[in-house]
Amino acid sequence: MAASSSLTLSQAILARTATHHDSDPTTDRLSLSTVSLPTFSGLKSSSPSSSLTSRRTTSRRRLNSRHPVRASAAVETLDKTDTSLFEKSVNTIRFLAIDAVEKANSGHPGLPMGCAPMGHILYDEVMKYNPKNPYWFNRDRFVLSAGHGCMLQYALLHLAGYDSVKEEDLKCFRQWGSKTPGHPENFETPGVEVTTGPLGQGLANAVGLALAEKHLAARFNKPDNEIVDHYTYVIVGDGCQMEGISNEACSLAGHWGLGKLIAFYDDNHISIDGDTEISFTEDVGTRFEGLGWHVIWVKNGNTGYDDIRSAIKEAKAVKDKPTLIKVTTTIGFGSPNKANSYSVHGSALGAKEVDATRKNLGWPYEPFHVPEDVKKHWSRHGPKGAALEAEWNAKFAEYEKKYQEEAAELKSIINGELPAGWDKALPTYTPESPADATRNLSQQCLNALAKVLPGLLGGSADLASSNMTLLKMFGDFQKNTPEERNVRFGVREHGMGAICNGIALHSPGLIPYCATFFVFTDYMRAAIRISALCEAGVIYVMTHDSIGLGEDGPTHQPIEHLASFRAMPNILMLRPADGNETAGAYKVAVVNRKRPSILALSRQKLPQLPGTSIEGVEKGGYIISDNSSGNKPDVILIGTGSELEIAAKAADELRKEGKAVRVVSFVSWELFDEQSDAYKESVLPAAVLARVSIEAGSTFGWEKIVGSKGKAIGIDKFGASAPAGKIYKEFGITAEAVIAAAKSIC
Amino acid sequence: MAASSSLTLSQAILARTATHHDSDPTTDRLSLSTVSLPTFSGLKSSSPSSSLTSRRTTSRRRLNSRHPVRASAAVETLDKTDTSLFEKSVNTIRFLAIDAVEKANSGHPGLPMGCAPMGHILYDEVMKYNPKNPYWFNRDRFVLSAGHGCMLQYALLHLAGYDSVKEEDLKCFRQWGSKTPGHPENFETPGVEVTTGPLGQGLANAVGLALAEKHLAARFNKPDNEIVDHYTYVIVGDGCQMEGISNEACSLAGHWGLGKLIAFYDDNHISIDGDTEISFTEDVGTRFEGLGWHVIWVKNGNTGYDDIRSAIKEAKAVKDKPTLIKVTTTIGFGSPNKANSYSVHGSALGAKEVDATRKNLGWPYEPFHVPEDVKKHWSRHGPKGAALEAEWNAKFAEYEKKYQEEAAELKSIINGELPAGWDKALPTYTPESPADATRNLSQQCLNALAKVLPGLLGGSADLASSNMTLLKMFGDFQKNTPEERNVRFGVREHGMGAICNGIALHSPGLIPYCATFFVFTDYMRAAIRISALCEAGVIYVMTHDSIGLGEDGPTHQPIEHLASFRAMPNILMLRPADGNETAGAYKVAVVNRKRPSILALSRQKLPQLPGTSIEGVEKGGYIISDNSSGNKPDVILIGTGSELEIAAKAADELRKEGKAVRVVSFVSWELFDEQSDAYKESVLPAAVLARVSIEAGSTFGWEKIVGSKGKAIGIDKFGASAPAGKIYKEFGITAEAVIAAAKSIC
Repeated sequence: MAASSSLTLSQAILARTATHHDSDPTTDRLSLSTVSLPTFSGLKSSSPSSSLTSRRTTSRRRLNSRHPVRASAAVETLDKTDTSLFEKSVNTIRFLAIDAVEKANSGHPGLPMGCAPMGHILYDEVMKYNPKNPYWFNRDRFVLSAGHGCMLQYALLHLAGYDSVKEEDLKCFRQWGSKTPGHPENFETPGVEVTTGPLGQGLANAVGLALAEKHLAARFNKPDNEIVDHYTYVIVGDGCQMEGISNEACSLAGHWGLGKLIAFYDDNHISIDGDTEISFTEDVGTRFEGLGWHVIWVKNGNTGYDDIRSAIKEAKAVKDKPTLIKVTTTIGFGSPNKANSYSVHGSALGAKEVDATRKNLGWPYEPFHVPEDVKKHWSRHGPKGAALEAEWNAKFAEYEKKYQEEAAELKSIINGELPAGWDKALPTYTPESPADATRNLSQQCLNALAKVLPGLLGGSADLASSNMTLLKMFGDFQKNTPEERNVRFGVREHGMGAICNGIALHSPGLIPYCATFFVFTDYMRAAIRISALCEAGVIYVMTHDSIGLGEDGPTHQPIEHLASFRAMPNILMLRPADGNETAGAYKVAVVNRKRPSILALSRQKLPQLPGTSIEGVEKGGYIISDNSSGNKPDVILIGTGSELEIAAKAADELRKEGKAVRVVSFVSWELFDEQSDAYKESVLPAAVLARVSIEAGSTFGWEKIVGSKGKAIGIDKFGASAPAGKIYKEFGITAEAVIAAAKSIC
Repeated sequence: MAASSSLTLSQAILARTATHHDSDPTTDRLSLSTVSLPTFSGLKSSSPSSSLTSRRTTSRRRLNSRHPVRASAAVETLDKTDTSLFEKSVNTIRFLAIDAVEKANSGHPGLPMGCAPMGHILYDEVMKYNPKNPYWFNRDRFVLSAGHGCMLQYALLHLAGYDSVKEEDLKCFRQWGSKTPGHPENFETPGVEVTTGPLGQGLANAVGLALAEKHLAARFNKPDNEIVDHYTYVIVGDGCQMEGISNEACSLAGHWGLGKLIAFYDDNHISIDGDTEISFTEDVGTRFEGLGWHVIWVKNGNTGYDDIRSAIKEAKAVKDKPTLIKVTTTIGFGSPNKANSYSVHGSALGAKEVDATRKNLGWPYEPFHVPEDVKKHWSRHGPKGAALEAEWNAKFAEYEKKYQEEAAELKSIINGELPAGWDKALPTYTPESPADATRNLSQQCLNALAKVLPGLLGGSADLASSNMTLLKMFGDFQKNTPEERNVRFGVREHGMGAICNGIALHSPGLIPYCATFFVFTDYMRAAIRISALCEAGVIYVMTHDSIGLGEDGPTHQPIEHLASFRAMPNILMLRPADGNETAGAYKVAVVNRKRPSILALSRQKLPQLPGTSIEGVEKGGYIISDNSSGNKPDVILIGTGSELEIAAKAADELRKEGKAVRVVSFVSWELFDEQSDAYKESVLPAAVLARVSIEAGSTFGWEKIVGSKGKAIGIDKFGASAPAGKIYKEFGITAEAVIAAAKSIC
């Protein structure tokens, strides 16, 4: 598209927007009507919208019937000012994005330019928030799943009055130490709920946020006091739609009937490689109907402002299903020569095109300028937000008076304070306690914690009976029983992880856990990494943690997984050896609310070992037995998880032969790293070079612990299908191997 | 369900099968008609099938209209024997599965018992194969995506006469060293096409197999000789359907119009956690229609044999779309007390229930017995397969005569022989060659290789213009241009990886490559691991490999990724530093057809360094410069990729100060590990403990290379959003840091 006149081009864009996606002649009349600009007005609920189409499709044919808006509730904060101010305000967003990307010479102007109208309507008319307290509990949540378009969100936060995004922050877009990084980061920018950029994650986070709201509302709301009551809005792009994670999460959202989840699909038909026609021709609306969503199509997302408003209203009226509002927009709207092309997706427009866009949209202002009338228009959100929060605080005071117990529980979820003495609930074990798989011991911990932690909830990716994750005192979180705490994720590991991130970031006191086989962390690794980055203290309960699972074979046997997570920043990789260590791992996991934990747990039975302890686990590595003196053992045997038993057995043998042997449990490398040098020296004295490690996984990284004179026993190839004992023997993960290695070096 | 009479139960199961999924009263009449057992007969194409329903759905309501079968082509090998022999043969499959799982006391009997009819029809009536040559090029491909049900496939391979699965192999199911591991493994069992178990992978592999067929057919078929012509069949379960990867791959299959891909969805309504109602209530058929598939529903997959046959016929008649045949079955069909429950999914039935099932299905035989008439019935597949292959060989001989050039090319794809001197096509560089990003140098290599490697094809997950992966001499592989070689995967990394596994395993000479940002290997890690395990030599072109990508920030900056792949078995992690090393990385990647390679490539420009070479890369680690003598440098500086330049700069400075400094490029740890001890000693002499490594990633694992006296410079936290140079400086990835570290130890 290379029209010489910018006016002609703008019209062409509008026409394209209306027709690009629909070759069905029956809709053309409706679509073309959207070329005339609607007036900027309050929503009239009785007027049918011209280009708003609810999907009632057949498999191959769309029935784009008009239908009246059914809801009677008004969109919250309708604005009665004139269209020109609205458009000026929308253009302010566009130019803040253009100017910031231009100054950084880096970023994605296309999405903010195309999504400015829907973003504006959300933040200015629809959403409930207090810019002076971004963490106000009952705020509506907004997620920009297409995170590369973050300048949209920064511009909106700026206009709405958030202190996190001042003018100088916009000017430092994508610069070292700024509050406006290249993708939205909740840990950098108050007002940003989650961390997005990797596509599809944000949509799944939004499902988690909406789940949390539905759960808490069901648990705490009373007929006379709906103390939990907010919506979750999310903007997703074509890229998010293509990612499998979004299908997983949206299938669950439909299953759970998350009626207060409203997703805007920025249908701009452009992705990095060009027109989505080259790789993305599925019928997204039909797919979402299959997933159990309500689907609405706003055909002109560029200027069909009332259609966007009507769609939101309709979405809110549908209470038993999440809604997808497909909003057809023009990427880079307003840029005469780059709109509707991939060139506007991920690069600065360039000085010449910025000028042309200024002319085209009639924008006479300096870069980063917010016109006074626009500023004034937005300034009401400060007092309004304060009032909303005050009103809610009053409501909470009422609630607290009447429902003391519930209020205390809800408060602890809101502020994240763990109940005093909660850790006393953790089970402890003696060497006489029966041998058991750590996955079973994990279930004992989970069930003990469920009694004392009001925010603990979670589940498994269709392996509850293998991962042992059911909370026996609760039922299933389902569409009609959302107050329950066992979440059934189905075989959707990736969606599960990202949903748990959303739950964790909804409220500091929510402690989500999720489970699958350890090897299938591969399916959800991108979500786990986001947990670590965005400081979401999700607990990953990962069972079947080695060749010890036996017959299922190499597709199911983790090898490199422990190493791969030890290398990941801000995550705790814990591999407990028995009951006390499993309890210790849970203590660590619950305490670390800003650092996710992965618990690698055995399928097979393990003995309760003498010397293990919760306190030991908290130090990451510690001595469980030692017959040496003066911190000078002949050899140090180091094990983790199911192999600690083997180390202990080998030590027994070696001691019989007169050796001074120390056995160290190395349950978490990260925690050990954080100990004092003196403590580390007390466990692994520098002078003792005779060290043997044993772990049924990759030896990669173990040189750091055993040193170049030591020996690392492990597995550096794929596993095998056979009974576990046989594999251990064939792979040399045995006490005999430890003894032989020890003797070779001491 | 706990009926006391097994007859009653069988009937109950039939009734359930017919009605379980459909509460629409309009279909009940049709459904109930399926309770009467159809006769076992050849397919009569004129008779409408009673319980076969093509989906013509509205969004919320199924219109289960009868409709006549439209195809006229006959299913290939219709069997005209009687129903009782067919059922006996089907029951043979069931009991081979039951008996093998029972003997192993481990495995999944439920799927084979439920899917035996469709499996039987496929292997006995429909599929084209030669059991004595499992690698015959033009065979139909079969994938059991629900890999846990592998006893179905083993039983079928056994009956069909494959040498890989003899009776003794069935008796060694899931035992050490057997050909019948716990999930299907192509590298263990000829006749198994791909490695499945991790759910959804197989379906995506099947998309890759079907893509390969469509591509090769378009390239090589002639109007008078369709030398490439086979179908790809896949059985998927509920679990596969829930995984996001399957939606990604199936969206592409629909987009590409892979008409010869036929997927059977074993709709048994049971997953490990129980009824799929608890987490999976989406309308799968509607979703697949949205994805552009043809959808058929066989309501009685237990005994509706003719309906299965008709569905296959209909699927074959639809040539422009892949087909999903939803086959409603009863998991564990025939087990009086465990059918239709999760207890039959993943455990042996137990002696008592095995007896009850024998009684219920009228099976008087010893374990593992194949009745003589069943044996005889299947025995024709030996001669038939041989005839099929001979016929094709004759056809190929004709083809070769007439189309010599094409035949030679196709032959090289079939046998995997690389053309002589292919590696001469790789570009080489001198220090005077212009500085460039390794992603651009990678594109030069890919385009050079495309000219000489007939099997090279691939693309990017919507980042072709960032990953620099377009082959300029070719167009896009699309529905109507399948002969082209640029594959547009969309933003679907996971599906992309698994599709490439399918392509690689289709023919030894196909060399698929695929690309995204290195950090997004997290999205596709499960597929990459399968590449490594199943020996698929996929080339992973992973650009933007460090903080060097700059402003996109920590969500996009890999940190732990190099370490995480170095820890993975059977994979080559390569991080080239410049043009020669990029060419070397490609040489290694192309040569290693049974080991996938990951190339980590820079976004930013890098100089062409003196001393780098293709030969050096082949050794994994090698000296690029050295001013020491006698293999006794004062210090060894070790770098990879973009940091090799920094190491070289630091060396220059240190040498100015009189130090004897060796610089080592450590481009692939795996390849270095495979060198002789003498070579290793020549690069990293044991006596030289002063070693400094520098790499813009996790230091995890580097102790192995630098030793406990050395220093590893790297990044053990998440990245940041800022211009790349700034981040390098702030994170201390600088020549100054290397110099300081070197001075501190030498």
